[in-house]
Amino acid sequence: MGNNIHYSYNALKTFCTDAFKKFGFSEEECDIIVDVLLTSDLYGIESHGMQRLVRYHKGIEKGLIKVDAKPEIVFETPVSAVIEGNDGMGQLLGHKAMTIAIEKAKKTGMAIVTVRNSNHYGIAGYYAKMACKEGLIGMSMTNSEAIMVPTFGRKAMLGSNPIAIAMPAKPYDFFFDASTTVVTRGKLEIYNKLQKPLPRGWALDATGTGSSDASVVLKNIVAKAGGGIVPLGGETEQLGSHKGYGYGMFCEIFTSILSMGLTSNHTHMNGKGGTCHGFIAINPAVFGDENAIREHLSTLLQELRESPKAEGQDRIYTHGEKEAFAYEDRMKNGIDVNINTVAEMVDLCKYLDMDIERYLGKEAVQLTLKQSSYDM
Amino acid sequence: MGNNIHYSYNALKTFCTDAFKKFGFSEEECDIIVDVLLTSDLYGIESHGMQRLVRYHKGIEKGLIKVDAKPEIVFETPVSAVIEGNDGMGQLLGHKAMTIAIEKAKKTGMAIVTVRNSNHYGIAGYYAKMACKEGLIGMSMTNSEAIMVPTFGRKAMLGSNPIAIAMPAKPYDFFFDASTTVVTRGKLEIYNKLQKPLPRGWALDATGTGSSDASVVLKNIVAKAGGGIVPLGGETEQLGSHKGYGYGMFCEIFTSILSMGLTSNHTHMNGKGGTCHGFIAINPAVFGDENAIREHLSTLLQELRESPKAEGQDRIYTHGEKEAFAYEDRMKNGIDVNINTVAEMVDLCKYLDMDIERYLGKEAVQLTLKQSSYDM
Repeated sequence: MGNNIHYSYNALKTFCTDAFKKFGFSEEECDIIVDVLLTSDLYGIESHGMQRLVRYHKGIEKGLIKVDAKPEIVFETPVSAVIEGNDGMGQLLGHKAMTIAIEKAKKTGMAIVTVRNSNHYGIAGYYAKMACKEGLIGMSMTNSEAIMVPTFGRKAMLGSNPIAIAMPAKPYDFFFDASTTVVTRGKLEIYNKLQKPLPRGWALDATGTGSSDASVVLKNIVAKAGGGIVPLGGETEQLGSHKGYGYGMFCEIFTSILSMGLTSNHTHMNGKGGTCHGFIAINPAVFGDENAIREHLSTLLQELRESPKAEGQDRIYTHGEKEAFAYEDRMKNGIDVNINTVAEMVDLCKYLDMDIERYLGKEAVQLTLKQSSYDM
Repeated sequence: MGNNIHYSYNALKTFCTDAFKKFGFSEEECDIIVDVLLTSDLYGIESHGMQRLVRYHKGIEKGLIKVDAKPEIVFETPVSAVIEGNDGMGQLLGHKAMTIAIEKAKKTGMAIVTVRNSNHYGIAGYYAKMACKEGLIGMSMTNSEAIMVPTFGRKAMLGSNPIAIAMPAKPYDFFFDASTTVVTRGKLEIYNKLQKPLPRGWALDATGTGSSDASVVLKNIVAKAGGGIVPLGGETEQLGSHKGYGYGMFCEIFTSILSMGLTSNHTHMNGKGGTCHGFIAINPAVFGDENAIREHLSTLLQELRESPKAEGQDRIYTHGEKEAFAYEDRMKNGIDVNINTVAEMVDLCKYLDMDIERYLGKEAVQLTLKQSSYDM
């Protein structure tokens, strides 16, 4: 057995769907949750797919995520809405909020919907893509447990605070989805699982000094003992730390501030999640001929891909290109799942009384959970 | 004489106003242009204030900027507008566009206005602040002459593409204004004037390899010979180069793409500027009680400032704090202008037949222009 076990998309879908059904979600709800989760693996963003399953498992188990939560629209105008999530599953709240933003944008031209008291909603980009599939520009943001240390600080105050944007283009949509930290917590979790040292310029220890030890940094984050991940742009202003910190604030404004929800530094305390999201949908048709606009973007993307390469490089990617290729490949050829993640899936089978061999195969039966990378 | 000459705000205002009048702008137009320019110096963003005066001078002289241009609204809805700038002065087009966005946002809740065929408009943040002064969230973006080399490339394809956002808060507004390149061309121009080597991780030579020579990099940019400035996040994906490149694209979408204008890689060619801008105004009141929302943001900013500092650091700034302090200080105590910049101002006096001693003082009379940092 190598470091991975190979599964088909359908095998993972069946396992996940049945697991979330066992947690008490409806058929329709399971479809949404599983589509968000597996889209991440299909896009090649392993850090936010099956690798995060354990977070949802623990979140539901500990009552942070309430399976029967009913969201409420607490404020609404033709271009906006604020949703009180009542501690529901992030994917369901995200899907509902972006659906409303899309409906409003189709009528008015643009709309913003914010959500408070939600939970981790998977990849931000999923919801941006929902709008994109409807011919709109989609944006999606979420705050999260504090992990970003502001420039010159030593305490994590903002989340990884991803900002995602998608816009229709040919042959593949423009699709940008990135944390405003230099890397995500998920990336640290992968390094921790692989027991690899972190590259310089990613993380800080409890004194606010650079650290290469993923295990220590992650433990400090969980214990709120100080340190965390630095903003995009690094530790100092010379390479633009204040810019990543600024984009982190940008995200915070469109999530917690405009929903009157918990800011990142107050989420995940006292047995409560409290995550906030923001969703923006914009109809390009309010700026002219939407087909011409799509062509205009497609031309720029093509020019970027065809522009001269640096010495030693043979390819310039445009955002969304890697994901489009990964999606096609993995949907057809299946997905490699790290055995530590499979061990977590085995653990979940045991917890939910699901047949390990039937869902995860013979190889998985012997795996036992060594450690959970995420202890809520 | 040191490296700077000290001027009062009013002295610089009188000089600039009279200079732009001589170029043929109306009293009202001069007020707008000069306010944008000097606000930059007042905020401490020297790279975009008096230091850029020579660009406007050369731009008008060479016909890139048309003093008598009449902008036209070519597409409009209640939430949007597209303005054809007809090669007008960027500051006037930016001011007009944000004024329209503010009016629309007050009626509908939010609005986006794009501008094509404009010119350099000064600091992006000026227009974001216009909305902020009206109680709205303001955003402002502009593309520019290609200077950002995409990840793995060696040809500049995107501009410095700043994104600015401002939102009302106490005791000072949240105000973030930053290029999506690791640094701006203005910063390189200052290093060039001071003949200082560039820090590592800022710029690339014509082969796509790191360079510390500001003069060579700037010359290559002007000659479109290859190289340029790297995205926020550096040269490789390890520190997030693809993220800065993504924010550069974000800016491009809200400027050139949604105005059907020239993308950065096609601006500033064949005697034409062609710069595009984008302006967003959002009324926080469409998300609930705007005073409560403002307090919520103010609390987060205060918590950030008060959060524990890294070893060796004694202060964490929030975005807009430095600018607020600089503004107060410089408005009261005056502004230091680098003598190379004063030499450019002297040159402008000669060109416009203005009395050097009267406008710029005795010290300035002896200065002669050694080199222009920006040759359009």
